[in-house]
Amino acid sequence: MSDDDRLKREAAQRAVELVRSGMILGLGHGTTAHQALVRIAELLRAGTLRDIAGVPCSTQVEAEARKLGIPVTTLDEHPTLDLTIDGADEVDPNLNLIKGGGGALLREKVVAQASEREAIVVDEGKLSSALGTRSPLPVEVIPFGWKTHIPYLESRGAAVALRRAPAGEPFRTDQGNFILDCRFGPIRDPHGLARGLEARAGIVAHGLFLGLATDLFVAGPNGVRHLRRAT
Amino acid sequence: MSDDDRLKREAAQRAVELVRSGMILGLGHGTTAHQALVRIAELLRAGTLRDIAGVPCSTQVEAEARKLGIPVTTLDEHPTLDLTIDGADEVDPNLNLIKGGGGALLREKVVAQASEREAIVVDEGKLSSALGTRSPLPVEVIPFGWKTHIPYLESRGAAVALRRAPAGEPFRTDQGNFILDCRFGPIRDPHGLARGLEARAGIVAHGLFLGLATDLFVAGPNGVRHLRRAT
Repeated sequence: MSDDDRLKREAAQRAVELVRSGMILGLGHGTTAHQALVRIAELLRAGTLRDIAGVPCSTQVEAEARKLGIPVTTLDEHPTLDLTIDGADEVDPNLNLIKGGGGALLREKVVAQASEREAIVVDEGKLSSALGTRSPLPVEVIPFGWKTHIPYLESRGAAVALRRAPAGEPFRTDQGNFILDCRFGPIRDPHGLARGLEARAGIVAHGLFLGLATDLFVAGPNGVRHLRRAT
Repeated sequence: MSDDDRLKREAAQRAVELVRSGMILGLGHGTTAHQALVRIAELLRAGTLRDIAGVPCSTQVEAEARKLGIPVTTLDEHPTLDLTIDGADEVDPNLNLIKGGGGALLREKVVAQASEREAIVVDEGKLSSALGTRSPLPVEVIPFGWKTHIPYLESRGAAVALRRAPAGEPFRTDQGNFILDCRFGPIRDPHGLARGLEARAGIVAHGLFLGLATDLFVAGPNGVRHLRRAT
């Protein structure tokens, strides 16, 4: 395990300290969230945690959770979640996020909205003063008419690339949709951009997570920092 | 054919007078839009119209168009459409609409956004002073976490019903999603409601079509009125 991986694991373990027995959790998608999953499974096996169930943010995480022996549930059974632990691609000083590098942004956002507490785990390299500086913004679009969004996204300043799977065909989300990875550079008005994207039919999700994260765990060479959003 | 049907057919035929040879059309979903389809097919057969192609708003309309001999194309080939002819469930004095009674609201809105001209055909019974007075507002949601939207919709004043197919199972859209039919009564601030719905991940479309219709053809006992949106 590399130093970076060890640091991320440490940060994920710190986030898992928020978990209490009896909680209904949101289970994030991605390598960092996976570290949290492994830790939760350890604590369940040890008997330190009991009566946990989780709502997975992707079919992949659902398979991982089942394999680790973490009970899986749904938002239909539990419309409100106590806590979600997830990763992010970029974080600004207000704890606004870009997510969706792993392609699960729509379900991750549904879960985040349903969560009373949203804990995000990242390494220091994900911090930036303005969203868009480090990461492209993923935009999930239905296949019907997907090309109609490109001129709009370009008019908002993006360089747009259709995400592809390793074999070269368009990547498909769990909903069967496409993802347009949009390089904006620093986004001056993330709320305005979010509103514009949300007003367009056919765009079913975007990676701007604004005002959703409540806790941030940052892995750095000097250890793990825990930040909470000012309320 | 009832008097009502005759009047709607007359109004649809008036809308078809906007079609010129060489145009790329959006083909709306529903009984009124179907009347326009039949008329376009007649004019193609008669040679009055030539070089027409249409983008269907649903798989059902695609089948109807093919059966009538109307060439079908896609937004991928033609990202900008010259004209769309469609129906509506309710129309306010600013030519804002509620659509989606037929379940095709998402593709209808993608097509409307891509159209330079959006002609709506209704009978007088669809006119109202405030949207929501006559029709429930259809809200299309992904199955994942669909119940989480109900408390939100209720908090905005809606009585919410999951739309069901004739056999009783949940109705599915062409995207495989559910529809929540939301009775609001008169909606005082349709733009504010639209923004609120669009900000929620998992709601992929709603039936408020604001600022999209350019032309309205209204069938009434004294004939067909043609209104244009003030620009």
